[in-house]
Amino acid sequence: MTTGTRLAQRSLERVVETFAEGKPYDLFFLSVRGARLVGRKTEAAYPGPDRADRPAERLKCGLVEAHMLLGVAEREQVAEDHVAVFYRPLAEAEKAALFAEAAADPLTDLYHPYAQLGDRIREAAEAEVGGWEVTEERVRELDHAEAVLRDYVPERLAWLGFDGGLAYDAACSTGAFLAAVGHRFPAARTVGQDLSAEMVAYARPRLDEAHCADSIRPAIPEGGADLVICRHLNAFVVGTRQAHELFAAAASRCRPGGYLVLLGHTPILISSQWCEMSGLRMVQRSAATPSGHALFQCYILRG
Amino acid sequence: MTTGTRLAQRSLERVVETFAEGKPYDLFFLSVRGARLVGRKTEAAYPGPDRADRPAERLKCGLVEAHMLLGVAEREQVAEDHVAVFYRPLAEAEKAALFAEAAADPLTDLYHPYAQLGDRIREAAEAEVGGWEVTEERVRELDHAEAVLRDYVPERLAWLGFDGGLAYDAACSTGAFLAAVGHRFPAARTVGQDLSAEMVAYARPRLDEAHCADSIRPAIPEGGADLVICRHLNAFVVGTRQAHELFAAAASRCRPGGYLVLLGHTPILISSQWCEMSGLRMVQRSAATPSGHALFQCYILRG
Repeated sequence: MTTGTRLAQRSLERVVETFAEGKPYDLFFLSVRGARLVGRKTEAAYPGPDRADRPAERLKCGLVEAHMLLGVAEREQVAEDHVAVFYRPLAEAEKAALFAEAAADPLTDLYHPYAQLGDRIREAAEAEVGGWEVTEERVRELDHAEAVLRDYVPERLAWLGFDGGLAYDAACSTGAFLAAVGHRFPAARTVGQDLSAEMVAYARPRLDEAHCADSIRPAIPEGGADLVICRHLNAFVVGTRQAHELFAAAASRCRPGGYLVLLGHTPILISSQWCEMSGLRMVQRSAATPSGHALFQCYILRG
Repeated sequence: MTTGTRLAQRSLERVVETFAEGKPYDLFFLSVRGARLVGRKTEAAYPGPDRADRPAERLKCGLVEAHMLLGVAEREQVAEDHVAVFYRPLAEAEKAALFAEAAADPLTDLYHPYAQLGDRIREAAEAEVGGWEVTEERVRELDHAEAVLRDYVPERLAWLGFDGGLAYDAACSTGAFLAAVGHRFPAARTVGQDLSAEMVAYARPRLDEAHCADSIRPAIPEGGADLVICRHLNAFVVGTRQAHELFAAAASRCRPGGYLVLLGHTPILISSQWCEMSGLRMVQRSAATPSGHALFQCYILRG
């Protein structure tokens, strides 16, 4: 910490999110140089300065920016109805420097330690899954929120040495993400699966195969994939327990030495530590946009 | 960390406590040499090797021992129904060395970040407060669980320079704790207050004054105390929100330069960071038993 000794002398501040009104899941931590930085996610420039051809927009998504950092976390208290994190505040220039350092290291752990807590049970979200109406507007919205991820992942996989084979998306949704992988790797065979028949019908023309089934029962055999994509182990999609069951199902499909990618535009509910405990090798935990204006969670693992 | 580089190579482990069955509030953290050690509280030797005259006993109380440490915390995840903490395990000798280091520094932060979570609403506990039946057995039990704290605090206060004046216990219970302070400082005037009329009747003969009232309305004037004792801002006694309200009420009674002591045999719900943000000076956060076999939370603040 460049700010070392001076930090302890700064007045403490705290950020509080109640379960009822607030959003504990918007609190994020970033491990940089042994310190735990705490921040709160708000709307980010999207897709950001790298895509000048696109209209400027601010979007609450997977992106976190330097100004969202609050300070160096000193203590958290999870009370009966709220989360409080105490921190020593950082100046804007310090945030920028630490953020740049975090962006330079793909193993930087960027994480959201708090799920949807309290009465905000996610039954509603689960019930919704089977019955999404696939409208052009909804497709545009879903695909738009993942544009930054779609821009990033195929190139990154190429850089890491992936060069085709069977690419399996356990919850392919509109198919746009997997299609982007297929576009970058013409030799890959793209196999999508989704719980929604409407989504599968929409995705089918974009993929080599599309299956309608719950991803707890993967459509491909064990160890059958060179690349497994998980865009569904995230807050607002599933709960933490279900995410871990689905993760095990998906991971079982990755061949030894294959790639497993976890990402999404809401917080990943699986920790990189859990991935490591599952016997996978963590190649990457986070990624930066090309300009470095934002970071996002992007787990890349090897089977 | 003596274990430095080797630590990262150790296999991760995790400790999980569900809201329904488990006890997230038993998880504790200990900040030593910039690392966050995580542990789980179980029964401790009580009162421990320092009091050979007392029968050997193991008690779930405020004491934590070296063997309860699990490892160096790397990440925590608070899910909808459980808390998981991932850590790199420590060997018994490492635990002992780090524990001894923690015990040597009274500013060591020993804390329990998780309150009673989930459906375990504490209404029942609150309802109980007014109507405790004061039996000899109950008195012995209450007094016994605080024996280590009673042995420690008066001597420690003397060492810190306290030498009498008005000593106020905001929730005096049996009066034993405040009476021990009065015994050590004959010049002190002991003023107790409790919500329970039965407790007040029991405590009265042991104290200079005893008032029956909710401690949100302290029986002494603002800034009137040289020493304020808070043994009621703890789990199983009040909730986190109420603890903060009662803390403000109690702290308002401490004169500038006076002492404020927070402790108890269940986790303190107020963080030392909150005390600091309230404008108080943290003199001490934890204490060790004379033999060093155990640590316990013991906040000593100056007004």
